[in-house]
Amino acid sequence: MLKAAIVGATGYAAAELLRLLSSHPEVQVTHLISDSSAGTPIAEVYPSLHGFCPLVMEKLDAEQLGKECDVVFLALPHGVSAANAPALLAGGCKVIDLSADFRYADLATYEKIYGVTHPCPELLSEAVYGLSEIYPAQISAARLIGNPGCYTTCANLALIPAVRAGLIDPASIIIDAASGTTGAGRKPAQAYHFPETDENYMAYKVAAHRHTSEIEEQVSAAAGKAVRLTFTPHLLPVKRGILSTIYASVTPAFSVEAMYAAYACYQEQPFVYIHPQGTLPQLKMVAGSNMVHIGFVPEPATGRVIILSALDNLVKGAAGQAIQNMNLMFGLAQATGLSTPPWYL
Amino acid sequence: MLKAAIVGATGYAAAELLRLLSSHPEVQVTHLISDSSAGTPIAEVYPSLHGFCPLVMEKLDAEQLGKECDVVFLALPHGVSAANAPALLAGGCKVIDLSADFRYADLATYEKIYGVTHPCPELLSEAVYGLSEIYPAQISAARLIGNPGCYTTCANLALIPAVRAGLIDPASIIIDAASGTTGAGRKPAQAYHFPETDENYMAYKVAAHRHTSEIEEQVSAAAGKAVRLTFTPHLLPVKRGILSTIYASVTPAFSVEAMYAAYACYQEQPFVYIHPQGTLPQLKMVAGSNMVHIGFVPEPATGRVIILSALDNLVKGAAGQAIQNMNLMFGLAQATGLSTPPWYL
Amino acid sequence: MLKAAIVGATGYAAAELLRLLSSHPEVQVTHLISDSSAGTPIAEVYPSLHGFCPLVMEKLDAEQLGKECDVVFLALPHGVSAANAPALLAGGCKVIDLSADFRYADLATYEKIYGVTHPCPELLSEAVYGLSEIYPAQISAARLIGNPGCYTTCANLALIPAVRAGLIDPASIIIDAASGTTGAGRKPAQAYHFPETDENYMAYKVAAHRHTSEIEEQVSAAAGKAVRLTFTPHLLPVKRGILSTIYASVTPAFSVEAMYAAYACYQEQPFVYIHPQGTLPQLKMVAGSNMVHIGFVPEPATGRVIILSALDNLVKGAAGQAIQNMNLMFGLAQATGLSTPPWYL
Amino acid sequence: MLKAAIVGATGYAAAELLRLLSSHPEVQVTHLISDSSAGTPIAEVYPSLHGFCPLVMEKLDAEQLGKECDVVFLALPHGVSAANAPALLAGGCKVIDLSADFRYADLATYEKIYGVTHPCPELLSEAVYGLSEIYPAQISAARLIGNPGCYTTCANLALIPAVRAGLIDPASIIIDAASGTTGAGRKPAQAYHFPETDENYMAYKVAAHRHTSEIEEQVSAAAGKAVRLTFTPHLLPVKRGILSTIYASVTPAFSVEAMYAAYACYQEQPFVYIHPQGTLPQLKMVAGSNMVHIGFVPEPATGRVIILSALDNLVKGAAGQAIQNMNLMFGLAQATGLSTPPWYL
Repeated sequence: MLKAAIVGATGYAAAELLRLLSSHPEVQVTHLISDSSAGTPIAEVYPSLHGFCPLVMEKLDAEQLGKECDVVFLALPHGVSAANAPALLAGGCKVIDLSADFRYADLATYEKIYGVTHPCPELLSEAVYGLSEIYPAQISAARLIGNPGCYTTCANLALIPAVRAGLIDPASIIIDAASGTTGAGRKPAQAYHFPETDENYMAYKVAAHRHTSEIEEQVSAAAGKAVRLTFTPHLLPVKRGILSTIYASVTPAFSVEAMYAAYACYQEQPFVYIHPQGTLPQLKMVAGSNMVHIGFVPEPATGRVIILSALDNLVKGAAGQAIQNMNLMFGLAQATGLSTPPWYL
Repeated sequence: MLKAAIVGATGYAAAELLRLLSSHPEVQVTHLISDSSAGTPIAEVYPSLHGFCPLVMEKLDAEQLGKECDVVFLALPHGVSAANAPALLAGGCKVIDLSADFRYADLATYEKIYGVTHPCPELLSEAVYGLSEIYPAQISAARLIGNPGCYTTCANLALIPAVRAGLIDPASIIIDAASGTTGAGRKPAQAYHFPETDENYMAYKVAAHRHTSEIEEQVSAAAGKAVRLTFTPHLLPVKRGILSTIYASVTPAFSVEAMYAAYACYQEQPFVYIHPQGTLPQLKMVAGSNMVHIGFVPEPATGRVIILSALDNLVKGAAGQAIQNMNLMFGLAQATGLSTPPWYL
Repeated sequence: MLKAAIVGATGYAAAELLRLLSSHPEVQVTHLISDSSAGTPIAEVYPSLHGFCPLVMEKLDAEQLGKECDVVFLALPHGVSAANAPALLAGGCKVIDLSADFRYADLATYEKIYGVTHPCPELLSEAVYGLSEIYPAQISAARLIGNPGCYTTCANLALIPAVRAGLIDPASIIIDAASGTTGAGRKPAQAYHFPETDENYMAYKVAAHRHTSEIEEQVSAAAGKAVRLTFTPHLLPVKRGILSTIYASVTPAFSVEAMYAAYACYQEQPFVYIHPQGTLPQLKMVAGSNMVHIGFVPEPATGRVIILSALDNLVKGAAGQAIQNMNLMFGLAQATGLSTPPWYL
Repeated sequence: MLKAAIVGATGYAAAELLRLLSSHPEVQVTHLISDSSAGTPIAEVYPSLHGFCPLVMEKLDAEQLGKECDVVFLALPHGVSAANAPALLAGGCKVIDLSADFRYADLATYEKIYGVTHPCPELLSEAVYGLSEIYPAQISAARLIGNPGCYTTCANLALIPAVRAGLIDPASIIIDAASGTTGAGRKPAQAYHFPETDENYMAYKVAAHRHTSEIEEQVSAAAGKAVRLTFTPHLLPVKRGILSTIYASVTPAFSVEAMYAAYACYQEQPFVYIHPQGTLPQLKMVAGSNMVHIGFVPEPATGRVIILSALDNLVKGAAGQAIQNMNLMFGLAQATGLSTPPWYL
């Protein structure tokens, strides 16, 4: 039984980690860390956990925690998160960081995009980008994971096979994505006040969202050259889920058959479903689960293909993929503890 | 053309006053007051007002405002609100206060329930309770109105006819009510954070809501004796609307015919619709309008009657009833500027 | 490994059975029955099941099915459902019927309320009412279960301890309940058309809902005398969940301590959480799980107590309780396969 | 006072026409036509109209109706709608058709896209496309209007100025749009069943929606050459509103200033608001009103501009624009009866 801790225990990613780990057969959560809520039972913050999690939150002692645990999930804001990694690793545990701090191979890009000085740049070369389906071998060997962003995972899993196979023109990529509100976290704000969000739909951070650079880094790697693309996030009046509607111009190599051949790279992956022609991903098909659904429609009249992908931002976009990475890191079957179907209803 | 001002202009009640008054043929809003947002155009706070309201918010000078305006709507928190009334009245305008400050005939009840010292108790005897359908004559003659609460209006209009006619036992009254989230105002809080409110339903302030005393005061007046009753508010994952499901034991005088005879008191009222047997009020039947729908179902097996009433908390429960009262105070037809049908969709 | 079948496989209760049984360690679903959809993979109806359930729906051969399976879940409309029970039982399996057909001890009540002639009244005396926390011994010994209604379970688990202990007056009970829309099933209808349901709230079947008699039957048993009560269902613009707000006059024996003593009967039950004074059940605290939350607030001014209970209508109100009963019937731990926490988000 | 009739009175577009015309000072609705509901008061179908509209629906006698009315709104399905136009016009009234039947200059395109034979192609040359801001002179002179589609109006008003001014490359246009559910009409269907739509988000008719051709016809006219573009509609879990997120590559002539110069064509238009840099359209800014909000963000890194536009599909996308066109046709000020601000809440 692996011993796990969650640092930043009051946030939504932590709540989802707790929900999912409660039925993981090989993991026991032994410590919940929250400096501001130390002494409070987690079930007072999330009453849904009465009967499921008796833990009381504690203050952080990183090195001690690293000694007592096999794995620590960091669910803290960027900048704050990475600062704890060295002591945790020194204690001997493996670390999965859900913030942006260890997602970038390139320090300068990270520091420019996030406007902070990285607290431990020496760890960047060791950290592995936790896009489970793309880097399973590296993840399996890692002790430090930069867990990908939610929008990023949704877009990259949909794009990488077609880009690698040269079926679409990387310079033409436009990602129009819509997310549920849990992506914005637990802290109340005007934009997420129920009377302002309900029955509304809006774009935000147009041409300026931080995940753009994270998507570009991965798509560039797949394309073998630097790619700039357009990414527009929208806020949906729902709790969970991201749907990406991706537009790209096709290359002469493109055909429906070539697309399915390219996406066959996911054939053995338990969490990716490729839709046949005629059906497409929807939020309810993936809600609550670690699944990613991908589908596409060619548009011969314009020479474009429209690729759609859907995932649950709290699961495959955060806590679920973190657990999937943990499974890989500890030699467990990828789907261990993640085998519940989506909710649909 | 009456000149009107709204004090507390950034709140939801003010926004609704502005929306409704924009199409009132006899009123022009000339001043919007907000000490904290002075200098900001209201259309920056509510972009829906671009093209409809060019006003810039100002700091309050109560006596000056009272001189320049015919009517001032106070849309401020209780305690704060009443403090402005004396200077406004001294300036010569009429005042409609949407807070609880002028709703109670009994000072002690107000001060106990709201936990504040009333800033101008000398005005309480002059203030008229603005339940338009019940006190039209007094409202017409008033220069100071205590505009009723939203839950209160919904319950009282449904109860008063049956209680006055002696068709139900006042001691048996139980009001189970559910409200949309705009009732809680514009300020973000955990309980109204979209991911916490969406898909949820909860009771709150059970056996402890302030509107209980306001309902009791009016029902007692209708019954001719002191009445204690049960009132349970719930929070609905919608923007607008209150539905009250009211339970009471019937008296020997009760019959379906006697009920319709009692509610015929509303026959000439433009904003009350009494459902025939077989249909009942729903939120969508009143949303966006100043209407109140009332219906009832007798339950012979238990000797009870279930009375249902619905209104829009921002309109008949706040801004609309305030305008209805203004119309009465200035000798206009009650429905002036309030004649748009409910939205339904 | 138990072999299970679901008859009526396209409905929402069946979809939820499939979702939950997918992670049940002791059960394999081997047959999905739908006469109208035979030949169609269930994942075409619920695309969320791609990768989780490869089964194709079949036509019903009841006796053969009874031979091949250990347990059959009937998720069919009342009247239709019971007709299959004799052949299934003859085949040798155990049967859990989610319809109303086997819920009533009294045939006449059932036939009056549901307006049908019972197809196999001879089985009524054998059938056990599957309110798991109240009748565990009988359920463990049964081969035929009448699985309780959703509203019924929510009300009865909240009422039975207080009624048994004589702390409330059964004649005073009023149940005001609100349900999510999945309770109405999968078939589209005007009342559940999104533009009509969204942002709406309504009471329905006031003083006329069938579950009233089912609640009365159980409360009468707890009271030791015939009880008539008031039950008002409402439709919430959410997918899942029932919240019951229950009003009752207290007896001289009532005290907060006496209430907690009465509800201590659930102390060993894995799916019941009793709130301490100061917090109350909400839908999000139970969504997606088999949990029931119960809390209460005394109101000395009126001599009443307000009891609140919440559950997920598709889980504890249908599929989850059916699985809980199956666990009891086959000697498994009650919580087997049902140990995932509520979703909260 | 103009006399107006609505044919197809039970649908959502008709309900919205009734809501809006109720406060139009120059129009009286005298006839509501519904062959299937003749004899039923409209307030039985839409109880929100109790107290606002006493009309009873009637069967259609087109020529007689054309004689008795000044204007008739056709709110019927395509194919069915146009068939009534000749007799109505013969009666002497003006006709505003909300279906697709009179939207196309090119008969062949219409018949190919809609798969029907046009019942009165001889009227196509006379019919005027009712995009009010673009064709005001022609509309003013018309007796027959083809009222534009909802998605179409939202996209075309956002695109035409930039295309006419040569600031974007027409061949690069991609329209990603999301609509509320009222756009799908009143008839229940699985895709709009509340439990299936709530908390969901999906694309539909990808690369295959009929409005694509209607957008292309207008954009081609603006570009002065045939344009093919990509349009992807999505279904939002809200009642009302369309948000279009439009992507296009800019030309060398593009600049932020050039854009504002191009959109200054709307300066005198009462229903178009152009956002300054820094804010963008959202559904709640236009809900319930005839407003269109347009904003844009340049993205120098990709050479694209992202243009956003929002409107209410039932108002500016259907009933409101129909009334705006009626105002133009009868020489009334464009905003007559349409001057209520958006709801925001």
